[in-house]
Amino acid sequence: MKLTARESDLAVSGPIVIMNRDDCLELGVGPTDRVCITGGSSAVSTVLISDSFIPKDTILMPPDMMAKCSVWDGDPVDVVYYPMPESIRSIRKKINGGVLDKEEIDSIVSDIMGGNLSEKEIIGFVSAFNVNNSDLVEVAYLTRSMAGTGKTIDLGVKPVFDFHSLGGVPGNKITPIVVSIVASHGMCIPKLSSRSVSSACGTSDFVDTFCDVEMDADSLKEAVRKNGGVFACGNEDYAPVGRLIIAAERPMGIDPRPMMMASIMSKKVALGTTHLLVDIPMGAGSKIPDMETGESFARDLIDLGTILGIHVECAVTRADQPVGSAIGPILEARECIRVLEEGDGDPDVVDKACSVAGILLEMGGVDDGKSLALETLRSGKAHEKFMEIVKSQNGDPGLRSDDLVPGKFVKDVHAKRTGYVQFIDNASIVAIAKGAGAPSDLGAGIELLHKVGDHVDVGEALFRIHAENQAKLDRAVESARSRRPMAVQDILKERTCGEMILKRIPSKEMLDLIRFRRRIRRTGPSTVIYVHLNTVSIT
Amino acid sequence: MKLTARESDLAVSGPIVIMNRDDCLELGVGPTDRVCITGGSSAVSTVLISDSFIPKDTILMPPDMMAKCSVWDGDPVDVVYYPMPESIRSIRKKINGGVLDKEEIDSIVSDIMGGNLSEKEIIGFVSAFNVNNSDLVEVAYLTRSMAGTGKTIDLGVKPVFDFHSLGGVPGNKITPIVVSIVASHGMCIPKLSSRSVSSACGTSDFVDTFCDVEMDADSLKEAVRKNGGVFACGNEDYAPVGRLIIAAERPMGIDPRPMMMASIMSKKVALGTTHLLVDIPMGAGSKIPDMETGESFARDLIDLGTILGIHVECAVTRADQPVGSAIGPILEARECIRVLEEGDGDPDVVDKACSVAGILLEMGGVDDGKSLALETLRSGKAHEKFMEIVKSQNGDPGLRSDDLVPGKFVKDVHAKRTGYVQFIDNASIVAIAKGAGAPSDLGAGIELLHKVGDHVDVGEALFRIHAENQAKLDRAVESARSRRPMAVQDILKERTCGEMILKRIPSKEMLDLIRFRRRIRRTGPSTVIYVHLNTVSIT
Repeated sequence: MKLTARESDLAVSGPIVIMNRDDCLELGVGPTDRVCITGGSSAVSTVLISDSFIPKDTILMPPDMMAKCSVWDGDPVDVVYYPMPESIRSIRKKINGGVLDKEEIDSIVSDIMGGNLSEKEIIGFVSAFNVNNSDLVEVAYLTRSMAGTGKTIDLGVKPVFDFHSLGGVPGNKITPIVVSIVASHGMCIPKLSSRSVSSACGTSDFVDTFCDVEMDADSLKEAVRKNGGVFACGNEDYAPVGRLIIAAERPMGIDPRPMMMASIMSKKVALGTTHLLVDIPMGAGSKIPDMETGESFARDLIDLGTILGIHVECAVTRADQPVGSAIGPILEARECIRVLEEGDGDPDVVDKACSVAGILLEMGGVDDGKSLALETLRSGKAHEKFMEIVKSQNGDPGLRSDDLVPGKFVKDVHAKRTGYVQFIDNASIVAIAKGAGAPSDLGAGIELLHKVGDHVDVGEALFRIHAENQAKLDRAVESARSRRPMAVQDILKERTCGEMILKRIPSKEMLDLIRFRRRIRRTGPSTVIYVHLNTVSIT
Repeated sequence: MKLTARESDLAVSGPIVIMNRDDCLELGVGPTDRVCITGGSSAVSTVLISDSFIPKDTILMPPDMMAKCSVWDGDPVDVVYYPMPESIRSIRKKINGGVLDKEEIDSIVSDIMGGNLSEKEIIGFVSAFNVNNSDLVEVAYLTRSMAGTGKTIDLGVKPVFDFHSLGGVPGNKITPIVVSIVASHGMCIPKLSSRSVSSACGTSDFVDTFCDVEMDADSLKEAVRKNGGVFACGNEDYAPVGRLIIAAERPMGIDPRPMMMASIMSKKVALGTTHLLVDIPMGAGSKIPDMETGESFARDLIDLGTILGIHVECAVTRADQPVGSAIGPILEARECIRVLEEGDGDPDVVDKACSVAGILLEMGGVDDGKSLALETLRSGKAHEKFMEIVKSQNGDPGLRSDDLVPGKFVKDVHAKRTGYVQFIDNASIVAIAKGAGAPSDLGAGIELLHKVGDHVDVGEALFRIHAENQAKLDRAVESARSRRPMAVQDILKERTCGEMILKRIPSKEMLDLIRFRRRIRRTGPSTVIYVHLNTVSIT
């Protein structure tokens, strides 16, 4: 059926067009049915039916749908009935408790990518693909299938290291430090980070304040070959179907574990990762409430890695207060770079960065990774590598932490009594920093002047709010007043700084390696080449 | 915010209104957010945002939404932002593999009933509530909660018997026979049936050809008190939330087992059923492909019944060809009434009806239920009770099967070779009957002249299509040509008529009773009162 395309400004989620009742009758299309629309190209959409909104012989399309069909307002399009996609059978099978094979999962992923499934149908799949209703082999199929919807990169070197944090803890600014330490030992670590979704600052948000983070696949390859590491921002090149799934999930706030695992791992598969460390922050505000959940998640990730041929290790880390003292783009960048410049700094930041880098170094064959990581940081070698990467990402070759100046509108929040800081509420800290304008106002955020375990006197400043204008500062102060971001009590609480890794969960192979090393250490020579892992040159 | 309501004819699924972008900005409402609209009454809806469809200060509402808010086109309404319902947390918990308690399930059901959840969110719940992700206690909470959304009836007598067929087998016309047999023994059986959804004829469709089936709660109570049984049509009085869930599920063709069980049982809970027999048709076209699935479904239903305090038994029955030979409203009514008039007839119909009635009689305390059921049918006692019920439902007091005349436009379909009928394809038979106009054309349908195992000669009529006009007859004949409704081959196949129950799956208590009876029969008196089951008077 030939119809005239008309642009609609109706903000809907998912591909939806509106057609006249008579046209629908003629085409045999009922409510919630699908049509395939062909202009310069073709796309599938669900149909809403109306008489009054749209005259006969026309079709109302939202702008993104017009783009997909390569048509402009007033262009003719060909519209045909599009039967229910076959993949709905597979979704149904999953909902009924069945096990899906590779072809079935591929067809679902390809129909999501092609826009052939409605958000309702995507939610049906996501919800059924839950932890009690799917096995790791299905998750592995899903992971590979998702990776296949975008670019896959062959860096031409092996092994390829990576690390990933599940998120949920503010101030987690370790990425540039970890990448610099690891890459300075000649290891390859093409680290893609993300921008904030609901947090006060994502890694790419603060890295963006001192160098470029957007990088296409070719520049990524080149940068990794040259420097070993990047601090880039993940984009639509890799596993782009993930964005469509998240768009359906987000309004409901869901992200079941198997889907989360597939989403994380699909990007690693696309980048050719061979060795992955996953940081699992545990505590209030993070996705992991307790050690049991953390360990079971770690086991699943390690086992999924085995199926995918990726060596995965996990570390459950502290998330009961922010990492370091800065929250917000410029504040975090400054704290991060300061640690690299000085080879030292906030004990939590140093400990977490060096522990994570240390495990990665050990995955690469080093014996005592954390010591090597600390040494690399203290010697200035990490800072040297950091500056190499910054320059290659078009940053200032003379970059100094002091160049980064946070928002000048500041207000301190004071202790109402004398005592010890008992806890810091991550959610409140994030809310206040966002109130101040973070992450879009780069200078906005929070500086913690005390952390859990510190003694404070009544009237002493607990934290400082930075903003770029008075109105937002006032808003943040108001937000601080209505919440309880820090609790001060009489009870003496020991500071827990500097033990950021609560539990390391090595894979089976890593356990074997650790045992092997112990044996060697007891019996054999002082230098060993661990032939059963992919070793890398340690300079 | 005060807006003017405007009626929209946009055919959408779920509650959706359209608002102007400026109004939404002012109200702080984004896409997929919800608003609460108050006119004479209040209702919640998801918002679509547009500039061009709708001027500022107005709100476009579909007719059912206007009805829910008690407003007419042009009326003022008050619109406020409606936060995400709390029950979405519980849906999320279920998707993440959690176990829901009574309060959580109640809040989901109440939000579905109130229209506060979108179809996407309902699908999220339904999909997560699958067989591997929910336990029977949750299903029981869901069942009771669904029952609580409508009327619940106390018939004032106990026990209350019922039976239910999972459906999927055409020509299953046993309900009036079973109800008449069981009720003629003084047992109470308020049987509610349904109309066709996708089949050629539902029970209420054929019963409607000879008496009224619509009955409100009060008339139902009165009729059951008077006659013991009814052949009524289930309506929105009982567990009405089921309709909203099915409306969301149907376009995707999903109905996971726990949801199906809750849906079936919620209506039984509403009617105060104490003893339920579930007929589980097994075979091509039915929901149950094999005995293993059938037995596991039966186990779940029996166990769910135990939690709900309903004594459940199941019978897996043949569904490899239609029951009896008539498909279509008038044809089925005629075959059914003929069996009652003659006390005999098609062996499948007689066997299935008397087996089902027999099990119900045994659940009521009778020793050899099937023999009693056959005797009741043959003696004319069942027909007598049937006529009592028909008259009380405003049917013709002189009703005879021969009064029912099927469509006069007929066409026979003949065998193309000599041999034995190997199989009858239920789906094709249904499609042809629907092509002929069933169930809306009451006289349309199919008469099978041969069934599986019969010997036929080339050119002999296999089945007869009835229609009410030539066009539909032609369409049905065309449909028969393009399909393979019956296969005739050389292989001798034994007729399987008259053994409709493949396996009876009694509950644990029933098994105990059967064992108890065997012991009594071997050792004791010939008449026993089974005190450990609710007994009824057997006249």
